Amino acid sequence: MIAVSRPRFPFGKTRWAALVPLALVLAAACAPQGVDLAANYAQSWPVYAGSPEHNAAFDLPAGAPANLDKGVRWSFAEDGALPLDGPPKDVNVLRDRGAPVKTTQFLGNSVGVTVYRGTVYVESDLGHLYALDAVTGKALWTATADNALMGNPVIADGVVLVGSGDTGFSFEQVMAYAQKKPVVRGLGFSAIYGFDAASGKQLWRFATLGEAMPSLACLDHVCFEGTGDGNIYALEAKTGKLIWKTEVGGFASMSSANVFGGLVYIGFTNPNYIYALDAASGKVVWKQTVDRIANTGMGDNSPAVDTAKGIVIQNSVVDGDPKTRTMDSAVVAMEAKTGTILWETKLGRGPAPPAYKAGVSMVHGGVVYIGSPNTSHFFALDEATGKILWSMAIPEAGPAGAGRGSAAFFHGTVWLAAGPNLFAIDPKDGKVLGTHKPGGRFGIVNPVIVGGTLYADNSWGWVQAVPLDDVYTGWRSRR
Amino acid sequence: MIAVSRPRFPFGKTRWAALVPLALVLAAACAPQGVDLAANYAQSWPVYAGSPEHNAAFDLPAGAPANLDKGVRWSFAEDGALPLDGPPKDVNVLRDRGAPVKTTQFLGNSVGVTVYRGTVYVESDLGHLYALDAVTGKALWTATADNALMGNPVIADGVVLVGSGDTGFSFEQVMAYAQKKPVVRGLGFSAIYGFDAASGKQLWRFATLGEAMPSLACLDHVCFEGTGDGNIYALEAKTGKLIWKTEVGGFASMSSANVFGGLVYIGFTNPNYIYALDAASGKVVWKQTVDRIANTGMGDNSPAVDTAKGIVIQNSVVDGDPKTRTMDSAVVAMEAKTGTILWETKLGRGPAPPAYKAGVSMVHGGVVYIGSPNTSHFFALDEATGKILWSMAIPEAGPAGAGRGSAAFFHGTVWLAAGPNLFAIDPKDGKVLGTHKPGGRFGIVNPVIVGGTLYADNSWGWVQAVPLDDVYTGWRSRR
Repeated sequence: MIAVSRPRFPFGKTRWAALVPLALVLAAACAPQGVDLAANYAQSWPVYAGSPEHNAAFDLPAGAPANLDKGVRWSFAEDGALPLDGPPKDVNVLRDRGAPVKTTQFLGNSVGVTVYRGTVYVESDLGHLYALDAVTGKALWTATADNALMGNPVIADGVVLVGSGDTGFSFEQVMAYAQKKPVVRGLGFSAIYGFDAASGKQLWRFATLGEAMPSLACLDHVCFEGTGDGNIYALEAKTGKLIWKTEVGGFASMSSANVFGGLVYIGFTNPNYIYALDAASGKVVWKQTVDRIANTGMGDNSPAVDTAKGIVIQNSVVDGDPKTRTMDSAVVAMEAKTGTILWETKLGRGPAPPAYKAGVSMVHGGVVYIGSPNTSHFFALDEATGKILWSMAIPEAGPAGAGRGSAAFFHGTVWLAAGPNLFAIDPKDGKVLGTHKPGGRFGIVNPVIVGGTLYADNSWGWVQAVPLDDVYTGWRSRR
Repeated sequence: MIAVSRPRFPFGKTRWAALVPLALVLAAACAPQGVDLAANYAQSWPVYAGSPEHNAAFDLPAGAPANLDKGVRWSFAEDGALPLDGPPKDVNVLRDRGAPVKTTQFLGNSVGVTVYRGTVYVESDLGHLYALDAVTGKALWTATADNALMGNPVIADGVVLVGSGDTGFSFEQVMAYAQKKPVVRGLGFSAIYGFDAASGKQLWRFATLGEAMPSLACLDHVCFEGTGDGNIYALEAKTGKLIWKTEVGGFASMSSANVFGGLVYIGFTNPNYIYALDAASGKVVWKQTVDRIANTGMGDNSPAVDTAKGIVIQNSVVDGDPKTRTMDSAVVAMEAKTGTILWETKLGRGPAPPAYKAGVSMVHGGVVYIGSPNTSHFFALDEATGKILWSMAIPEAGPAGAGRGSAAFFHGTVWLAAGPNLFAIDPKDGKVLGTHKPGGRFGIVNPVIVGGTLYADNSWGWVQAVPLDDVYTGWRSRR
């Protein structure tokens, strides 16, 4: 994958010989620029957060440019971005509890970025898909959808796939729900798009009746999406051609699909189930649920898969109490092949947060890392037993709650984006090793780490590259 | 208001005398260009459709340019406009019943335009407010809001006021409704905006908790708006300063306010009432309803007021039958001062149309003109008794139904925009005198007539000026 090109000099042939020694020196100094930069980054991004485990952390290959190891630093303001040091939009009306999550859902970025072959791909609520140079932060291209883009772009066969839609119900659907009839979610136009990863050209658009908010998941040349019309679709990445469609009922919310062992995993609401479908045929192999699910529950959480152990981790808000306006969060581990529940762990009651109410899990080294915006705590669970190893209170979580996005594990350190902060956390005991406040606030955002750089977008509409050293300088010595 | 300026000629003083005869000829021919064009148009636009009666028809003043009497012709494509001869968006998924109304609500223009002092002001679903030259159709400026603009711009003190918001409910609100708790409508950011009518500069923005979809109504220097958070707001036009706020509960939908006799009239849903508030204090003077209201009922219809007779006309869908998926439409006439119902007339059962389900009334010469998308019929009712004088089946209404927008009465002719057509109708018997198909399809659009030109925007995202002669050449001889 590494293409070496010779540096070009603006000299004529006749002077070339005399300049060879200087040219060699320059060539050596400039070598990183001459190397195919893309080779230093992830070469595939098939699912949410880049891997079934949701651990978006990537070591640099040997010989990578020094600046990538040191970490690059830039900020990119999207269309409609708010001042980084200012409040969320309309805080005077929506208040401290509601304003941050409305800004997450309708202005900036809902979930984390994709960093693939030297390009950062970002979906924004205003319907834009940005492709940014990972080193400089400069926009390479911008594409636009008809409705909000709230997912993490996935890539297959050189095509960036995104789903578009919104969380709304029409009044007709509101009345239907009250009468216990099936409902479709999604107010505006909903569609799945394929854009050329290099040029941003729209290759195809697949319209759906209900919203297509979740991120897709891809296996080989086919990508999967659950939607607000109760269906799971398998589309050919290159063409958007429908391969199969399975109706499971209910609606998808923010449960991004995952793929492992020839199965597609995806959560749905109303009824609340996580489904495992045969990727080739679309046949439902198993479905699973937990008791007393609250709100959007199973359909709003992106399952993680430990591919080494064949375990699926899913989280749901449960036990909602309308009187106290509190709820709990239930993490379950299931056998990936059968859906058999291995353990269930409650993370504790707390005030029901607005909008997205759960935390996305990340699994690494036999430990499940997961937050709960109910209590604004972050947890480490033993993957084998579900036992809570430690928990930490997330500083400055605010009344909207924090702990929604999945963490990253890199160099013996857990990296978390929660509330207004980036944290470096000791995986042994949950002690905060370092903190950095880059401005704005994080929604369901997971940090993406490549070498010495942490990439994160935020609710305020910014994409940022931050050297890990800005968060915690001690990371290099940890393993 | 009429400023006469001399035509300018590119000639020096010395040659002027010799050219006087030619100059006089040219001056006569060019006179219209020299006159203040704005004086030929409405000089105020305080409420939906330009007048409390909803009759947006304006004679030209004496001496108006001949081309305005003849009628101008242009088409302006808004951002995201669909081909005029093509289908609605995503008809393959949304089908013939759903696609036209989704296109009305999320792509093009929901209601009619404002034509004020030579400028056409248009709100688009994509959040843009366009100011177009009424003679040429050229864009003078474009302003943008954070969410859809689905109303008819009103103007007070040189400020264009628009409300922004969407029809959606979050799942939390869906569940609250099922538990019979109060709900707030509006998913994304909601706000009322003031833009400078001449430059398009945003002067102020007043954020609201629930959607601000309806058109405002103005009295002197103050404008009124009902919103999805159950409030009616009075704002100073020039500054957006809150004058008063009255909580009535429920939510506004597309019921644009009206003003007469010092009272503000506005419909709300859940509970369904039309309210009359004292414009100065915000105190509720009376409220009224009808039996067995269906769907968004009172809150989705813009009341008309006959200012000569002191009568308020309001329409609601009623008697919804979930089994047959049919409903009726009930028109009521109320005493403007007291809300006392003078009569109620049902327009007939038919299939419940998708989205906006009622027709907006227009009153002229003792007759109420109103459509019903349930039956896709258009009616003339005796204003004194409510008796149906005649009805006509609207041709080419399609499965989405037609008859939503109010009609205009001009030169002894009723002008209607319904389905894909513009109609000239005989007010005596409902006979169609002329038809014109300008492309696309009309939502809740009323024709605006100025001299020989009919202005209309459509669901496909186009604004068009059409000579009345294109619809019906016989109009000039009618009175």
